Amino acid sequence: MSEGPVCLAKHINHVCIAVKSIEKTLGVYGSLFGIRPSAIEDIPDQGVRGTLIPLGGSQLEIIEPIDPNGGVARFIEKRGEGLHHICFEVDNVAEKLKALEARGVELIDRKPRKGLAGMIGFIHPRSMGGVLVELAQRVEPEKR
Amino acid sequence: MSEGPVCLAKHINHVCIAVKSIEKTLGVYGSLFGIRPSAIEDIPDQGVRGTLIPLGGSQLEIIEPIDPNGGVARFIEKRGEGLHHICFEVDNVAEKLKALEARGVELIDRKPRKGLAGMIGFIHPRSMGGVLVELAQRVEPEKR
Repeated sequence: MSEGPVCLAKHINHVCIAVKSIEKTLGVYGSLFGIRPSAIEDIPDQGVRGTLIPLGGSQLEIIEPIDPNGGVARFIEKRGEGLHHICFEVDNVAEKLKALEARGVELIDRKPRKGLAGMIGFIHPRSMGGVLVELAQRVEPEKR
Repeated sequence: MSEGPVCLAKHINHVCIAVKSIEKTLGVYGSLFGIRPSAIEDIPDQGVRGTLIPLGGSQLEIIEPIDPNGGVARFIEKRGEGLHHICFEVDNVAEKLKALEARGVELIDRKPRKGLAGMIGFIHPRSMGGVLVELAQRVEPEKR
């Protein structure tokens, strides 16, 4: 048997856009595309507030900086609002981050942390063809 | 009844990344995430070659410029490789483009054209919070 992938991506958990105002974006995307508002939560360790909206079998995430010195605020300052990252759904994110690191992949998170999509970890765009990739493992509500 | 959305997004048809080499990217994403190569097709009117890879219930599109003066080549030159656009699946893309235009949305394509994902049309990022949005209507193989 040939060697399998280090970190099987099961699904696109979500695509994330970084904007200056979640409410304004929800207004536009809601009236045009029928995207319905979902709960907005603060994620202080990412310097953002965000919302995760089911769309077909995947999700659209919208984030807005709350920390003017955070990475997302700097992203918007430098590149403007727009697509920010893509999130692949995986099993056992802790194990997958270790396996990727062992393969020489540059990680932002060496250990999982809690995010909107469950237990998550980010991979550096330098290892991913310029794409900020998040891994997420869904967590059952009672375990969160 | 309240007025419905102009253009109901049913699903995230795909997320697209623009890269310098599809083969190199497939090598990295294949060995790490188990993403399997799919057919690569030229799309001359977009100045790219591209491939559309099923991933869970959605798809990952990878495009590479073939026209050094095209929009995607300029995108990579200016911003580097990375996330390029998101595509929402809709019914009747021709009708939806008309309805969006009537609502004052700035379109790149006023009429649908053939793309990898079916009959497609692009909306200008200026109307979409900095996000290049594609609409796609799946076309049955025999009708393409």
